[in-house]
This record gives sequence, C-alpha cells and structure tokens, in this order.
Amino acid sequence: MRDTPPVAELSSRLAGFREELKQRKLPAALVTNERNVRYLSGFPGSESALLITRDKKFLLTDFRYMEEARRDLPAWSVVVERVARTRDGKEKELIPRALMDKAGYLAQKLRLRTLAVEAEDMRVVDMRALRKAARNTRLKPLDKLLCGLRLFKSAWEVQQIEKALRIQERCFLELFASLEEGTTERGAAVKLRYMMVRAGADDQAFEPLFQVGSHSSQPHGRAGSRVLDGDAIVLVDWGAKKAGYHSDLTRTFFLGTIPERLRKIHDVVVDAQGGAINRIAPGVSFAEVDGAAREVIRKAGYGKAFGHSTGHGLGLDVHEPPALSAREKGEFDAGMVVTVEPGVYFPGLGGVRIEDDVLVTPGGHRVLSRLQRSLRWNGL
Amino acid sequence: MRDTPPVAELSSRLAGFREELKQRKLPAALVTNERNVRYLSGFPGSESALLITRDKKFLLTDFRYMEEARRDLPAWSVVVERVARTRDGKEKELIPRALMDKAGYLAQKLRLRTLAVEAEDMRVVDMRALRKAARNTRLKPLDKLLCGLRLFKSAWEVQQIEKALRIQERCFLELFASLEEGTTERGAAVKLRYMMVRAGADDQAFEPLFQVGSHSSQPHGRAGSRVLDGDAIVLVDWGAKKAGYHSDLTRTFFLGTIPERLRKIHDVVVDAQGGAINRIAPGVSFAEVDGAAREVIRKAGYGKAFGHSTGHGLGLDVHEPPALSAREKGEFDAGMVVTVEPGVYFPGLGGVRIEDDVLVTPGGHRVLSRLQRSLRWNGL
Repeated sequence: MRDTPPVAELSSRLAGFREELKQRKLPAALVTNERNVRYLSGFPGSESALLITRDKKFLLTDFRYMEEARRDLPAWSVVVERVARTRDGKEKELIPRALMDKAGYLAQKLRLRTLAVEAEDMRVVDMRALRKAARNTRLKPLDKLLCGLRLFKSAWEVQQIEKALRIQERCFLELFASLEEGTTERGAAVKLRYMMVRAGADDQAFEPLFQVGSHSSQPHGRAGSRVLDGDAIVLVDWGAKKAGYHSDLTRTFFLGTIPERLRKIHDVVVDAQGGAINRIAPGVSFAEVDGAAREVIRKAGYGKAFGHSTGHGLGLDVHEPPALSAREKGEFDAGMVVTVEPGVYFPGLGGVRIEDDVLVTPGGHRVLSRLQRSLRWNGL
Repeated sequence: MRDTPPVAELSSRLAGFREELKQRKLPAALVTNERNVRYLSGFPGSESALLITRDKKFLLTDFRYMEEARRDLPAWSVVVERVARTRDGKEKELIPRALMDKAGYLAQKLRLRTLAVEAEDMRVVDMRALRKAARNTRLKPLDKLLCGLRLFKSAWEVQQIEKALRIQERCFLELFASLEEGTTERGAAVKLRYMMVRAGADDQAFEPLFQVGSHSSQPHGRAGSRVLDGDAIVLVDWGAKKAGYHSDLTRTFFLGTIPERLRKIHDVVVDAQGGAINRIAPGVSFAEVDGAAREVIRKAGYGKAFGHSTGHGLGLDVHEPPALSAREKGEFDAGMVVTVEPGVYFPGLGGVRIEDDVLVTPGGHRVLSRLQRSLRWNGL
C-alpha cells in the first residue's frame, strides 16, 4: 500500500491501544475519528470505522472502498453492506449500509456488553443512531485515549514529516523564484498548493497564509487580492501533507528596502524563536519553552504584540497536543514533534512570524526544517 | 463583500428563518452549521455561529475574523472574546474565547429560556460545553429547519452555480487540449483543480474522479497512478465552487477506438439521462424521475449495473436534499437544482456515467450545464 506505515509498526500501535483498553477495563472500542482510524489501521478512506476487541479487528466501510480495503488490510476483517432483494423487488439490508448501523449490527453480533466510543468527537446524530442500533451494548466514552499514543512519533512518522518539509521547502523556493510584481496573494497561494501536490504531497497541510504588507499583522488573515510590490513585507505560513502527516512553516521576508523598525522586529522574533528552540529537551515543561520566547519579546518591548501561543504538536493533525503555552501542563519527551512560532504584530505596519518544526530527541532536540530564516533574499 | 448575496436577499432569508422559528414557537436559535451560517449571514468564516432572536442577531466569532466581520456584516452584532489581565498577570475572560462558551455567555446575558440548536449536526463535546455554559437555558433541537429554505434557490444562487459551471466546463476543455499519453489520473486531477481556482473558483467542489480504463467501473475510485493511453475510456467527475455554491458534472469519453459494447452502453446512459431530465417538472415525484432513468437502463439489459441513485440536490452542500431515488418522498418544485447522473458499470471492462445540473422552473426545467455529452472528442 502506498504511503502506509510498516506492518510491524501498525502491529505495535494496535498492541499499545489494546494495552490501554485493557488497563481501562474496556473489552472493545469503536474508533471513528478519521485520523485515529488511519493511525491504527493505515486505512486512509473516509466514512470508515474500526471495531477492535481483545482478539478481533474489523474495518467497517462501504462498497466504494471494499476492493481497496480487502487488498491493503489483509489482517483486518472488512465489513461492508450486504443487500438482498425480496420477491417484490424491495431491498433488504442483511448488513446495514449506514456506518453507525453497521457498527451496531456488529456489536450485537459479537454480543458486546460494553463498547468504548470516541464520544466527544462524534456527532450527536451518529451517537443517537449507534445507541439505537447497539441497544444491548453499553457505550462508554473513550476520550483522548489515542492522544497519548499519537504524542510520540516513530522514526517512520518523523520521516513522513521530513518528506513533507522537503516538499514544502523546495516548492517555496521554486515559487519564490517565479514571483513578480503584480502577483496576488491568492494567486501565489494557489500556485504553491499546485506545486506541492505535483511534487508528491497528498495535499497542502492547510489553506496557506500569503500576506502582503500590513495584511501580515493579522495572524490568520486569508490570502486575498493584494499584489506584490517592490517594497512589501510578505508573511507566508504554509505546509505540506505526506502519507497523512503534516509539516508547517512560516517565513517573513522583504522584497525591497527593509524598514528599520521591521528589521528590528524580525531580529527579535529570530532571537525569541532560537531561545525557545534551544530550551527544548526531555523533562522541560511546555510552559517554560513558551515563556522563553515570550521573555525575549517582552524585553524588547513587544510583549503585547505577541498574542498567540508559541507552538503546537504536529502529526496526523496539523494542530495536535501538546500546546506550547503558559496554560499547558506537562513536559517534553523524546519523540514529540512541535512547531515553534513566535510572532510580533503591529496593525497598520505589519507582522513578523517565524516558524520551524522540531523533534524532541533523548539528548535534546533536532530542528527538522532546513529553510533559511534570513531576511536577505536573493531570489528577487 | 466579495461573492456575497445581495443585502435584500439576505434579509429575506433571515425573515424566512424567523418566520419558521415563530411557527415552531422558538424564541431564539443558535446556528452552528458552517453552510447555514453562510446562508443566513453571508459570512464565510469557519468556527463561527449565529445567535438569532426575534429582534436581534449576533455573529459569534473570534479575533481572527473580527475585522472582516465588522466590515462586512454591519447589520449584525459581532461578538468576539474579551480578555483582561488580573494584577498577578493571569488572564481573565470577560467574554469567553471558546465558541460554545461564548454562545452560553450570550444566552445567559439575553436571559433566553429556550434556545433552538442544530443538535444533529453538533459534536457531542460542543453540545456538552453549551449545556454547561447556558445552564439556565433549555436547548431544543432544530433539525432540518434550514433544509426547507435552502431547497429553493434564488436567481442569485442559480447564478453562482452557473458561474461555477462555466469555470469547470472551460477548464475541462483547456485540460483536455493539454492531455497527452503518459498523463496520470492524479496529475490530470491536480491540474484541473489548479486551473479552476486560477479561473476564479473558490476551490474544486470535491476531489475529482479521473478514471482511466477499467478503473472507471468503480463509482468512487480516487484518481491514482494509471496513465492515459491511446485506447482508453476515461470517466471524469468534477466540479467547481463559487461563492460557496457547487457545480457537479461527469463526462465519459474515449481517447481512441471505441469498443462496440462501450459505445452501446454510452448510448443507453445518454438515453436514460435524457429520459430522466425530460420528466423533471413541478409536481413530478423524485421517485418517478429516478424510475425513468432506471427503466431505460433496465430495458437495455443493464439493470443490475446501475447501483446508485439518479441524482442529488446541489447548493451550499455538494450533496443536499432532495435525493433522486426510489425511496425519497416528495416532488419537484420550481427553484430546486439537482444533478441527473445515471451510470452503468462493468467491473473489468469499464463504466459510463453522464451527469448534468438541472434547474426546476415553473414550466418544467432548464439544463444549466452546456458541455457536450458526445463521445466524439476532437481535442485529441
């Protein structure tokens, strides 16, 4: 199967999951979150679910994915709908079509007394359908069980993030070389996506920010109709997705003369980011690393202009635990991958943010991204 | 505001919604579905909600969208978080950050006794948060209230779908002219998306199917690594999105010699589609139109090879009511826009599906799409 974790790794993820189920005295679980389905089975299809017991494992999907699922997941029992026609031509569902009906049908067939479900993440309508279809089974919430497992990335997972990084870095340089006055924010963002997919990414990791001039002071303003001109500050926050894993970078650069005040802000943000990254190591708290970035910015007098957290975990979700913020409890440990992205924003003037992706190693950390942070851009 | 309905139209949508609330004796509603938020307010941002009472209307969003919302929705009260710092430097939320907390805060402030919520569509975790934050307010399910309003498209809405159609048709022809042997399914699909966005679409309407050879027999197989060759059958199911509205077409064509059996299948599908479209008019049932397509295919001996419904509604969702199927209750009425897309699939050989978009008019119907259905393609 394309872009799928090694079989041994999938087995060990599943074993880890079953171990946690056992510790929580849960006999079986229904996994419905798309990323969690992919994490445990390698299956990337949508509208699918996993039903996992101590000794059995089922992939619930529909006829659209049947062929693919049976080929790629030989170790799983693939459950799709089965429909018969009665004499008067009406359809009768021997195995139901709708996903929650299918899950309920299977829970009944396996005579499960208790089934853990990803309650928080489910829609109310699905929960209701499942409750109806699995009426002899007690549903127990399984909140955040997979968060713990997914927090620590394997070598294979880190490789996928690195592949995504190489794609996004290469395409960014290529885009940059092709920029010209008159290019719109949106035009550039759309081209960047096309380049990344053509270069082998599953897709862009998220709608990229491509912000020209004072627009860069809006932390989440979308790429719009502003055009590049010779003197602009440009903030680009973009990422690629590979085998389901995300990468995420931000660079802020100038196309012409660099105003003194923005140059100073850029230097401060570079220092704040460096200070935070250098602090990352097993045993160090998330809050401490957030504080390290914040301290540099505060000392430079820009404290109020840095209104967001310093970073976030990166993996099958583009934002996942841990948060690098003052409120987050806990500490770094080897295998975590996080972004470090302080920023300083002045409405009307512009904003500077710099973001890199960092792996926590047993001895400290390794920066996974390679793209230069420098303001001096020779491409234009 | 770009791509936004005329102010008068937004007012009349809101009036229609309030009228329905009144009839159901609901004093206020919280609208959380992203498409419904856009339908009633024109606001396209994510992670936002509307709280609508008999005489007040609020847009709940966060600081990222604040500037945009205040500029573009002058008639709405825009509610964003407000945070103060206590003396010891801690944050205190005067207006909460999290969306459901914000909704609960507002419900309390307005002393709402009852609040209708889009229960089915909400996540369990959001429902729980809202229940906690709005503890003096009774939450009542508001299921499918907006479905009825959204079923009937205004002239402006039809225009957006037509704009999306013109984009997808033009880009398809342009793509077709540039196809060459060796192009992969995925390469073509990615290029098509890029072209459509460059031509002014918000995005593609959905991940396009671009299926070469026998792959075309899988009704939902994704674009993969198969390459075009001179003798291939090619099925393309693609769409564009404009101002939030979707268009959706399918064409099946041949790059070289046309095998007799597939030519016959193609003719049957064209006839089945024509038969179904010609039946569309106010007062005709959805099931009858589905039956009309099915009857042509059954008579040609392919009844079992047409396993899906004949079409679906099209609008802010790419699949929305009504379904053109035997099980769907109800009938056509002026203002509905639907796809008509019969297909015949033989595993190992290939599949043919043809899909067009149709507006129901007072006197019958009007086909909105213009792209030729013919097999004879002069582009290659």
